[in-house]
Amino acid sequence: MTVTEDRLDAAFTALADPTRRAIVARLARGDATVNELAAPFDMTLPGISKHLKVLERSGLISRTRRAQFRPCHLEGEALDAAVSWIEENRRVWKERFDKLDQHLRDIQRAPSRGGKANAE
Amino acid sequence: MTVTEDRLDAAFTALADPTRRAIVARLARGDATVNELAAPFDMTLPGISKHLKVLERSGLISRTRRAQFRPCHLEGEALDAAVSWIEENRRVWKERFDKLDQHLRDIQRAPSRGGKANAE
Repeated sequence: MTVTEDRLDAAFTALADPTRRAIVARLARGDATVNELAAPFDMTLPGISKHLKVLERSGLISRTRRAQFRPCHLEGEALDAAVSWIEENRRVWKERFDKLDQHLRDIQRAPSRGGKANAE
Repeated sequence: MTVTEDRLDAAFTALADPTRRAIVARLARGDATVNELAAPFDMTLPGISKHLKVLERSGLISRTRRAQFRPCHLEGEALDAAVSWIEENRRVWKERFDKLDQHLRDIQRAPSRGGKANAE
């Protein structure tokens, strides 16, 4: 498996949980400590820490080693690979869909051949 | 948990596997039977079928019940919820990042107050 595939696996796995998505959405608005992240959830600190580890392994968030409270930080660019993958495949699908749509319109617009319409 | 959260869970889980992503990428180019989908992979038909079930449950693909070979079809719109969620959070993160960047530029541009520069 390539590095890109590994990164996509990790990013999509990280985003496949509502608590982790809520953490990402919170960090998009600004860095936060583990205590701040845990506050809105009915969850223990070890519970939140488990989710943070999954997010950290995926590269979506980072934690500074120096600061006393080790605030969590969203690595926004890490979302790019995931969104690019989806968009590229959505684009391919959409182009095919549009071509099919145009083809059906062309068929409807074209005069029928060899039928009654030409027999006048 | 809301329906949207459930759908996002299912979509991201479905996309968190390289074989399932390859199936989605193949179906973006056109419908295909299970045999056609299995061909590029060193995988048994039951193995592929397991992945197709995950994709079907997530709503990303559908299979017609009528046709003899039950071709698989990508439900392109089902990718929208996943891509919208990522894009929205990326946008919030980017705006904050740009504001911070502008703030730092403003600080650098502003004349220092009460320092040596004003003492002439």
